[in-house]
Amino acid sequence: MAPILADNNKPKLPEMDDYVKNGRVHVENPHLDLMSEDILYHFDLGTKTHNLPSMFGDVKFVCVGGSPNRMKAFALFIHKELGLEGDGNDTTDICAGTDRYSMYKAGPVLSISHGMGIPSISIMLHELIKLLHHAKCRGVTIIRIGTSGGIGIEPGTVVITDIAVDAFFRAQFEQVILDKVVVRNTELHQELAEDLLRCSKRIPGFSTIVGHTMCTYDFYEGQGRLDGALCSFSKEDKLEYLNKAYIAGVRNIEMESSVFAAMCHLCGLKAAVVCVTLLDRLEGDQINQSHDVLKEYQARPQQLIAMFIKKQLNLCT
Amino acid sequence: MAPILADNNKPKLPEMDDYVKNGRVHVENPHLDLMSEDILYHFDLGTKTHNLPSMFGDVKFVCVGGSPNRMKAFALFIHKELGLEGDGNDTTDICAGTDRYSMYKAGPVLSISHGMGIPSISIMLHELIKLLHHAKCRGVTIIRIGTSGGIGIEPGTVVITDIAVDAFFRAQFEQVILDKVVVRNTELHQELAEDLLRCSKRIPGFSTIVGHTMCTYDFYEGQGRLDGALCSFSKEDKLEYLNKAYIAGVRNIEMESSVFAAMCHLCGLKAAVVCVTLLDRLEGDQINQSHDVLKEYQARPQQLIAMFIKKQLNLCT
Repeated sequence: MAPILADNNKPKLPEMDDYVKNGRVHVENPHLDLMSEDILYHFDLGTKTHNLPSMFGDVKFVCVGGSPNRMKAFALFIHKELGLEGDGNDTTDICAGTDRYSMYKAGPVLSISHGMGIPSISIMLHELIKLLHHAKCRGVTIIRIGTSGGIGIEPGTVVITDIAVDAFFRAQFEQVILDKVVVRNTELHQELAEDLLRCSKRIPGFSTIVGHTMCTYDFYEGQGRLDGALCSFSKEDKLEYLNKAYIAGVRNIEMESSVFAAMCHLCGLKAAVVCVTLLDRLEGDQINQSHDVLKEYQARPQQLIAMFIKKQLNLCT
Repeated sequence: MAPILADNNKPKLPEMDDYVKNGRVHVENPHLDLMSEDILYHFDLGTKTHNLPSMFGDVKFVCVGGSPNRMKAFALFIHKELGLEGDGNDTTDICAGTDRYSMYKAGPVLSISHGMGIPSISIMLHELIKLLHHAKCRGVTIIRIGTSGGIGIEPGTVVITDIAVDAFFRAQFEQVILDKVVVRNTELHQELAEDLLRCSKRIPGFSTIVGHTMCTYDFYEGQGRLDGALCSFSKEDKLEYLNKAYIAGVRNIEMESSVFAAMCHLCGLKAAVVCVTLLDRLEGDQINQSHDVLKEYQARPQQLIAMFIKKQLNLCT
């Protein structure tokens, strides 16, 4: 087994105060300054081919989610909500040169897709953090707006994550670096979570709660689903596992929050995870709600984040 | 630490002979037969809403790769190569109702995108294997055609994987199931790899080799890159690690092969991984070849697979 190390030397964890004092996005990599050019390959952007400060210097909010279509819809929605000029229909994909991710900008808000799973969002985050660094952005807040499976809560409930936990309910993310496993902190920004919860009280029509989010590497066997191509456990085993998760404080399950929390924490980004639950996993495994119901559910985190951003920009009281 | 178990009970590993004798795609899940409907959520397909045997019953080859655009291009290319009716321009995305994956069909060939990373391809494989099972497909060969970083070989070389190894060079895939870690076999189908290597000898213009493929959970720190947003190691540490990988038999690095090998093996699918290398990681980290060169590299695995499929279908000698 590879040695497991606590990640308490470098990159150093920023204190909560650092978010306020400095506000810069930290790139914890001494090699970057030695490079004459940085190609952000999966965005099809680069420091020599694009003027990143001019394109992105005014970004204050980054919203990320799995689906490209959903993140385009969010960009159009926030364009309208912020009362920006034009109807937003000329919003184009900044990453059109690649189909790995999609990226849209509406005023100070960047909306980016990250695909499914820890590796996919991790590639996006490395390149996004470098982009924000090259663009000299300050005071950036980043929010993942996603979908998830709930545990013991009404489908359609929105969960704001306080801590991301792994499949063994541990509040940590294991990052393999060369032949070592480094353990990283998965706390999200507490004050931001509280601000979001306060905002949610003003939106009628759905419940929002704060809870732990379990982040797994797999949707089927890894989340105790009985409906995958492979399943070697019983319904009783599944329910015992999910009940243990509930007792440990887990209220929803998704596939990106742990690495998102870990990387944002290390790089001085105020970060939140806000996911709607599409089903209650204690009741079933298949997502069988109608298209319209699922669409309405998926709009809920967007509504909440729009209200939060407007409040931050003093566009509402 | 969670207990680690060898996966030697159920699901049972098929013997190599099973591929020949039976030919059916195994779904190793007793619960599936009890379901009145199976919704393949991430494909936007289902057993009640779609006639899967009629849509997919004739599928003999499944080709998968990360990028939706590349898999559409492959579908159009193979349509032409197989001399199918029409110009292929009416080829539409079978999964158009969702943007999680794209799927195209050209005669007996299915071409599907899987996004980036183990979790993303694993969701796709669960639903693909159930699809092939519901459609009563027999004798299916599945090939991942991807991109990768090479170690100590000329950029543009095509690597056919014999065994997928993890970041510690172990020929295994660790699958978390409830609160246990199960270790799975990551061998690819040896005879298929040999057939593909034989085919490659007939294609001029590039080299094809057989070697181990390292499959990681991360593109930057996890592959020893010096150009991510986070990097805590030196160039010397990186080179020492990559040289160890080379000595262990690793010739390229990507992010999907281990779970692909493990799941296909368990479900009786003859499987191969054929990836082109975009750079030599001993020389650098950034992918900075021109767009045209990268495009030509990415066409190489497609050429090889087209020749293999034509040979299997007796369309060439």
